[in-house]
Amino acid sequence: MKIAVMGYGTIGSGVVDVLRINKEKITKRAGEPVDVKYILDLREFPGDPMEDAIVHDYQTIVNDPEIGIVVETMGGVEPAYTFVKAMLEAGKQVATSNKNLVAAKGAELIKIARDHNVNFQFEASVGGGIPIIRPLNKCLTADEIEEITGILNGTTNYMLTKMAEEGADFDEVLKDAQEKGYAEKDPTADIEGHDPCRKIAILTSLMCGRQVDFEDIHCEGITKITADDFKYAKVLNRSIKLLASSRKVGNSYSCMVAPFMLSAEHPLCGVNGVFNGIFVHGNVLGDAMFYGSGAGKLPTASAVVADIVDMTKHKNTNIYIDWSPEKLTLVDYKDSVNSFFVRTSSGKETIENAFGSVEYADAGIAGEIGFTTKDMTEAEFEKAAAQIEVRNRIRLG
Amino acid sequence: MKIAVMGYGTIGSGVVDVLRINKEKITKRAGEPVDVKYILDLREFPGDPMEDAIVHDYQTIVNDPEIGIVVETMGGVEPAYTFVKAMLEAGKQVATSNKNLVAAKGAELIKIARDHNVNFQFEASVGGGIPIIRPLNKCLTADEIEEITGILNGTTNYMLTKMAEEGADFDEVLKDAQEKGYAEKDPTADIEGHDPCRKIAILTSLMCGRQVDFEDIHCEGITKITADDFKYAKVLNRSIKLLASSRKVGNSYSCMVAPFMLSAEHPLCGVNGVFNGIFVHGNVLGDAMFYGSGAGKLPTASAVVADIVDMTKHKNTNIYIDWSPEKLTLVDYKDSVNSFFVRTSSGKETIENAFGSVEYADAGIAGEIGFTTKDMTEAEFEKAAAQIEVRNRIRLG
Repeated sequence: MKIAVMGYGTIGSGVVDVLRINKEKITKRAGEPVDVKYILDLREFPGDPMEDAIVHDYQTIVNDPEIGIVVETMGGVEPAYTFVKAMLEAGKQVATSNKNLVAAKGAELIKIARDHNVNFQFEASVGGGIPIIRPLNKCLTADEIEEITGILNGTTNYMLTKMAEEGADFDEVLKDAQEKGYAEKDPTADIEGHDPCRKIAILTSLMCGRQVDFEDIHCEGITKITADDFKYAKVLNRSIKLLASSRKVGNSYSCMVAPFMLSAEHPLCGVNGVFNGIFVHGNVLGDAMFYGSGAGKLPTASAVVADIVDMTKHKNTNIYIDWSPEKLTLVDYKDSVNSFFVRTSSGKETIENAFGSVEYADAGIAGEIGFTTKDMTEAEFEKAAAQIEVRNRIRLG
Repeated sequence: MKIAVMGYGTIGSGVVDVLRINKEKITKRAGEPVDVKYILDLREFPGDPMEDAIVHDYQTIVNDPEIGIVVETMGGVEPAYTFVKAMLEAGKQVATSNKNLVAAKGAELIKIARDHNVNFQFEASVGGGIPIIRPLNKCLTADEIEEITGILNGTTNYMLTKMAEEGADFDEVLKDAQEKGYAEKDPTADIEGHDPCRKIAILTSLMCGRQVDFEDIHCEGITKITADDFKYAKVLNRSIKLLASSRKVGNSYSCMVAPFMLSAEHPLCGVNGVFNGIFVHGNVLGDAMFYGSGAGKLPTASAVVADIVDMTKHKNTNIYIDWSPEKLTLVDYKDSVNSFFVRTSSGKETIENAFGSVEYADAGIAGEIGFTTKDMTEAEFEKAAAQIEVRNRIRLG
């Protein structure tokens, strides 16, 4: 099997590394050797062992009938979409790690692949090295999946873990994460939740078999989380995690990205540092959880190479993925139900007039008190919260 | 697709239930309806909705060309082995939840299935509803798996969790587990570790592609764990779990079932109650963990039905499973390396003469002290331990 890698950055070079490191195992499992014939990149890589494989025009790959599989690790929707589409239409299989591409064009590319009797796979686009896409498509097939809730972004989980452990404030841990290379110079996609939002859109599409647009998902990041919030989390024996969550409600799904305060019993509560965790509830399976490295060069490349092995074994067989382009209308965010932790300087009478009976939490911060509410809709919460002063509010999980 | 279920006990009736509960989803994913034509059981089930499907002679199933898939949920090696072999030889695919059968005859039945271009699948034999067999075979294919360590028995994990939470002693929690139906009247297979031993033998066979005999695995149960041990675990901020573990050492594997004291950072430390967790370390993936219901009627049936869906989609295709009958010789147990927690009435001088420098732990129990050792082989530990009085010793993880 001759393959091409488009994008020789962190993940792309990781794919080349994994194919070399585990050459023998991979050959055995794929049933034949997998060789990298081309690497598409705008740059030259003088002195790189793969120097001779570098090409600059994607048509070189499109027009080479020897290429059976193309790996896309460029990131972004364009030109990745144009390139991937051309590869599928030329009868080549494609594996991608690109969540932006999959969230925006997944349903369409799956259909193009099916029409050309090839496969479009994207295990690495969610949860890095954690197997989750293939388990959803191939393992949890006896179930109606009623909930998927994940810690899907390693950068923000590293930051929140550090805030919890060190009592540090947001700006401080962001600087540290940037110095360590966990956060990018422009950290927006991570800290504003845009990255996990695309990932939960992909997972929800696979749950329901229809297109879920990430633009429709209510998305809050972690920028408003402070060291004081973690003082209350400690008192309440909870941890604060950025969750991307999707729950079946009637014939639709309620979907959200936001920080949650998790109880110690929640399977995701102990998922710390750069790790990811994905909680799944099936109607007959019950609770399950998948945990591992959600990012990083080799773990992510491991998932891409698993796609390559699978596609090498399915050269002339389209593996059915249930994700139609027909759009799903999500439950209105204002109707989604949660309980809340709230910090306020208002008095207890005012609080109880607005929220009814609540449970108080005191973290010893002067001039304020914390409390937790019962389950209520977002609309009900907003109405009640307008009657008190709110310093911060975090949903409970 | 017409199927037969052999054994109408908890799991077998669960399979019938799951096929009914999720009929629509399963039909869509399998590509056709899946109907139960026969149920093989020695008993009659008057009044049962499936009464008319009951048969008593397995030859009825063997000789019906309409039957494409047979589910085996009888348990035990015989007559399950004879029946399953006959089904495969008759060109029928088989899904089983039976760890005893898979551990003893897995390699042979996989070969018979391959020779007849059908499949023998056993997702439910390890970890109940948790997808682990298919992820090992189909997802983690880019990796050299260097370690699998699991909490693979829900009964003992329930008991150990209860001892940790309530300070209760072994006999007390065993009685409670029996009353709740988690432990059987004869609890030997669970509390002596025979059940997880067969499961780790299966997982190790899949790691190395060769036959691992469970009889070769050093196996200790939880019967020697006392309430006092948990007092030390609390002091050390650790939890006591019955682990089944397999690590690659050179060209072989070091394999063991025993109670371990896990540090709070270990991904399995928070796996409580009847849940199972399976930790996997791959050379490029890094750490991953799979968590969920390791037993129970519907979760286990969910895994069996996932096999049925997969086999319905692969009617004339053998899915390769790398598990040859060639036997693997495990690393000698005496050479395996661990650190240990020890409780003793001996004095510090005696302890240090035997073990060198150690770290002490005091749980306030009169007349004894606890300590933890550095890494040493089992042989080295036994030699040192012979020089002191040992009340109990538990490996560290």
